[in-house]
Amino acid sequence: MNPRKNTAILLVSCPDARGIVAALSAFLAGHQGNIVEVDQYVDSEEARFFARIEWQLDGFTLPMETFADAFRPVAEPLDMHWHLYLPSRPMRMGILVSKQSHCLHDILARRESGEWDVDIPVILSNHEDLRPAAERQGIPFRCIPVPKEEPARSAAFAAQTQALVDAGCDFVVLARYMQILPPACIEAFPMRILNIHHSFLPAFVGARPYDAAHARGVKIIGATAHYVTEQLDQGPIIEQDVTRITHRQGVADLIRLGRDLEKIVLARAIWLHLAHRILVHQNRTIVFN
Amino acid sequence: MNPRKNTAILLVSCPDARGIVAALSAFLAGHQGNIVEVDQYVDSEEARFFARIEWQLDGFTLPMETFADAFRPVAEPLDMHWHLYLPSRPMRMGILVSKQSHCLHDILARRESGEWDVDIPVILSNHEDLRPAAERQGIPFRCIPVPKEEPARSAAFAAQTQALVDAGCDFVVLARYMQILPPACIEAFPMRILNIHHSFLPAFVGARPYDAAHARGVKIIGATAHYVTEQLDQGPIIEQDVTRITHRQGVADLIRLGRDLEKIVLARAIWLHLAHRILVHQNRTIVFN
Amino acid sequence: MNPRKNTAILLVSCPDARGIVAALSAFLAGHQGNIVEVDQYVDSEEARFFARIEWQLDGFTLPMETFADAFRPVAEPLDMHWHLYLPSRPMRMGILVSKQSHCLHDILARRESGEWDVDIPVILSNHEDLRPAAERQGIPFRCIPVPKEEPARSAAFAAQTQALVDAGCDFVVLARYMQILPPACIEAFPMRILNIHHSFLPAFVGARPYDAAHARGVKIIGATAHYVTEQLDQGPIIEQDVTRITHRQGVADLIRLGRDLEKIVLARAIWLHLAHRILVHQNRTIVFN
Amino acid sequence: MNPRKNTAILLVSCPDARGIVAALSAFLAGHQGNIVEVDQYVDSEEARFFARIEWQLDGFTLPMETFADAFRPVAEPLDMHWHLYLPSRPMRMGILVSKQSHCLHDILARRESGEWDVDIPVILSNHEDLRPAAERQGIPFRCIPVPKEEPARSAAFAAQTQALVDAGCDFVVLARYMQILPPACIEAFPMRILNIHHSFLPAFVGARPYDAAHARGVKIIGATAHYVTEQLDQGPIIEQDVTRITHRQGVADLIRLGRDLEKIVLARAIWLHLAHRILVHQNRTIVFN
Repeated sequence: MNPRKNTAILLVSCPDARGIVAALSAFLAGHQGNIVEVDQYVDSEEARFFARIEWQLDGFTLPMETFADAFRPVAEPLDMHWHLYLPSRPMRMGILVSKQSHCLHDILARRESGEWDVDIPVILSNHEDLRPAAERQGIPFRCIPVPKEEPARSAAFAAQTQALVDAGCDFVVLARYMQILPPACIEAFPMRILNIHHSFLPAFVGARPYDAAHARGVKIIGATAHYVTEQLDQGPIIEQDVTRITHRQGVADLIRLGRDLEKIVLARAIWLHLAHRILVHQNRTIVFN
Repeated sequence: MNPRKNTAILLVSCPDARGIVAALSAFLAGHQGNIVEVDQYVDSEEARFFARIEWQLDGFTLPMETFADAFRPVAEPLDMHWHLYLPSRPMRMGILVSKQSHCLHDILARRESGEWDVDIPVILSNHEDLRPAAERQGIPFRCIPVPKEEPARSAAFAAQTQALVDAGCDFVVLARYMQILPPACIEAFPMRILNIHHSFLPAFVGARPYDAAHARGVKIIGATAHYVTEQLDQGPIIEQDVTRITHRQGVADLIRLGRDLEKIVLARAIWLHLAHRILVHQNRTIVFN
Repeated sequence: MNPRKNTAILLVSCPDARGIVAALSAFLAGHQGNIVEVDQYVDSEEARFFARIEWQLDGFTLPMETFADAFRPVAEPLDMHWHLYLPSRPMRMGILVSKQSHCLHDILARRESGEWDVDIPVILSNHEDLRPAAERQGIPFRCIPVPKEEPARSAAFAAQTQALVDAGCDFVVLARYMQILPPACIEAFPMRILNIHHSFLPAFVGARPYDAAHARGVKIIGATAHYVTEQLDQGPIIEQDVTRITHRQGVADLIRLGRDLEKIVLARAIWLHLAHRILVHQNRTIVFN
Repeated sequence: MNPRKNTAILLVSCPDARGIVAALSAFLAGHQGNIVEVDQYVDSEEARFFARIEWQLDGFTLPMETFADAFRPVAEPLDMHWHLYLPSRPMRMGILVSKQSHCLHDILARRESGEWDVDIPVILSNHEDLRPAAERQGIPFRCIPVPKEEPARSAAFAAQTQALVDAGCDFVVLARYMQILPPACIEAFPMRILNIHHSFLPAFVGARPYDAAHARGVKIIGATAHYVTEQLDQGPIIEQDVTRITHRQGVADLIRLGRDLEKIVLARAIWLHLAHRILVHQNRTIVFN
């Protein structure tokens, strides 16, 4: 769904119990909040409740600076984790790239056309190749080469993480960034780094998945957008898609066909993240779409 | 989602307003109803609210025979249409077929394996061809030939409708039934007759859609499950799916490939209908899946 | 398949007969041509033979300027239509756009990254909006407004067609161009104008197909790339694809989701056209992919 | 493509060289063979040529009992492996099942409706559950329980293999057979045992793939039809397909949704095998479809 104007979004998670929906909706109704979308899910194996509630701020009588205090009597008895998203400035998305351009071009075109309400304060790369694509749209581009040897390597990664923090990024997108991020960077943006992996995970983890797919003789290839965690290609999956191939397609064809998959799957994941439609629990995502 | 045991399901529709979710959930919580799934949708163009709420009957303190009276104070002020589904006997599904067997075989296999909790009190046909498939599973089969001439034709349709009513059918499935039903039959089962049309509606309405698809040179064919209304192939669409073809496939290939689409799409629609996951409004379906 | 280097491609069509493949392959073998791909198709309804043959020029002993004379004794007895494509300069692709940018951005990104070996000598539009996107890549952009009134309207179209001819375009892509081309333009580029229509043709011909799709309540939307003929949206279909939607998606969502379909489907069609993999017969395409 | 009547099919594989297509087509043309379909593929990495040629026997002047002698002068210089398939009796397909019925029901429905021209001389199982499904269609069913302990286990497998051989099976289908076949059985039917694995291989090899898919939180599940080799789930992939899921689907839902995938993917693979459209090379399939 396209984003709505002037709404608040509440994401919650808590142990399942009777009356949670009633408690949440009564709280909002008590302050004249008109719910425009409620999505709820109970993980029956884990007996855990998840919800996303979006309501119009127009007419809502509770001042937002007092929300936390007012909501505490609802949330605490239910042992609820919650996060409130208010309409304000656009989200700030940092981007990491290497040399491949297709995901970056796709992202920049969406921003330029106004499809996404997002700011891109910085694009970082370990190579200079994509500087022109960034700069012709007036986006700061910074090249931080990542050497193979320590301690220069760690220093480069530290500079990169610092640059993302300094730019005030809310989240980070790896748009075909070919390096494995160090834990310090991941910890700086927990469940806020999106990666696109060019296979249908968990098949073909790691490097050169199209070569591996060709060698195995699969009839379908895929791409996977996921949050980055410390285990390579093991983070919570946000979105996947596939395309059919035949024996005629060699590795170079898979790479070409895969580019279209990668950019579309990554864009869908960014869209969901921007719309606060994703909760993460136990290394799985709940996507309220 | 697979059906849950011992739950009640409430489908509601009403003009949109503040506090509907709160009112519904407070009502259920007030009687110790544990909501296991709530799906809600606001059609903002029409300013209309739709929901499906499912809750556990275990522990629910309101006797179901008093539900209507107890719920009236909630529903009436909101001008709500509602329908309550209780776990009880399996739904009774009447089937109409002609000569083609693939949808019927698929349906019977699902019933036999226990995938669907459904009774099939009668299979009707205008031909004898599929009698053995029905009878070897102990399902009553009745052949009512449909002549071309009146008044015999109308009499045949009347007998057919009566047979469905006499068998106590809750709903009817046209499993590749090749006749156009008369209004009287449709009125006897409003939004409770499911048809499978062998095209991607609204493309190729009417007879011989695979010939038409081949003539147009499409690269994808489809199938559409919909509720039957008086306008041919114009009823609310429940489910659609497609498959890719090439120039190599002639009409006979489309017919063969289409069979797999048809049986799967029809089965998904029946599944949704059995689970009370479909609301109809303004010739469109809201499918809470 | 990715394009091969230094190969010739022969597209042929003729009445079906015994020995056509033998005649073609013997001709090439007689000049030491190593066939790297042969695709053949017999339309049995029409008793017509179609083929695409690609062979290595390395080692091929027939000088290409004598090909026509040498091939005539093979082609004439079979009443064969044929076209030979030689590796030479990149194809020249003219582009027409209006205000929407997604297809153009996608095309320009593919050209810039080297995915396509194509020249874009000119981008024409009836609006100024996309001039920056063109000019920052150094591509000539010319705005020819198309008034509603005659004779200015016809004059504008004539200027447009002339501009495409003057630019030496081999073919033309309508990248979400919102005007209906006049016959004179179509005749100047027969079966060499590619359009992307934002529906799953033949459903929703004409204007505002996403509104029509929403009104009909379809569960899947599509996009169709086709060659332009004088009948609106009736030309031979090159490629189609679809995406699944639900009741939650309003028209604005369909437009957003459709953009991704449109750009990918159009790109696939351009790819096929560039690779000389499409034959047209009786308003249908034969796509040797 | 639907099977044609009264045609011969030749599958060939050889080192790539100039003039192979010419040699093959000239050979057939020399005996008045009218080619109705030729599919060819060159694996450029391996420099190996593969083809499937189908021609009408009507008018073909070479007596088939002399084909091998006549073709030898073509095949030997090219170091060609070849296999000729003639129209004759239907192929004989043995089936192994355990307790799950959906693939078997689907296969039997296709045979009964005449979609496939195939004989099923025997259905074997390690359980009695599916005996009625087999016997009501008049197909011999034999239950050979497979104990866990040796030597009874090996004896059971030996009896099973012998039963398949005795029934004159041309090939064998594992229609959700839950045992791992011993090498002796695989050797008796090399590249002629088709299995359906309920995951998108190579993801989730081995037992309980739906549990593994749920645990990993994938957004798409798949099914894979492949030839059985001695390495579990490692044989050449014939066909795959996928279906989209969400966080709402638990393992039981995946099992249900997966059944539809499994039966359709297995049926497509059987169809391709029956039509002699599959070549195997280096653990990959070349599918001329």
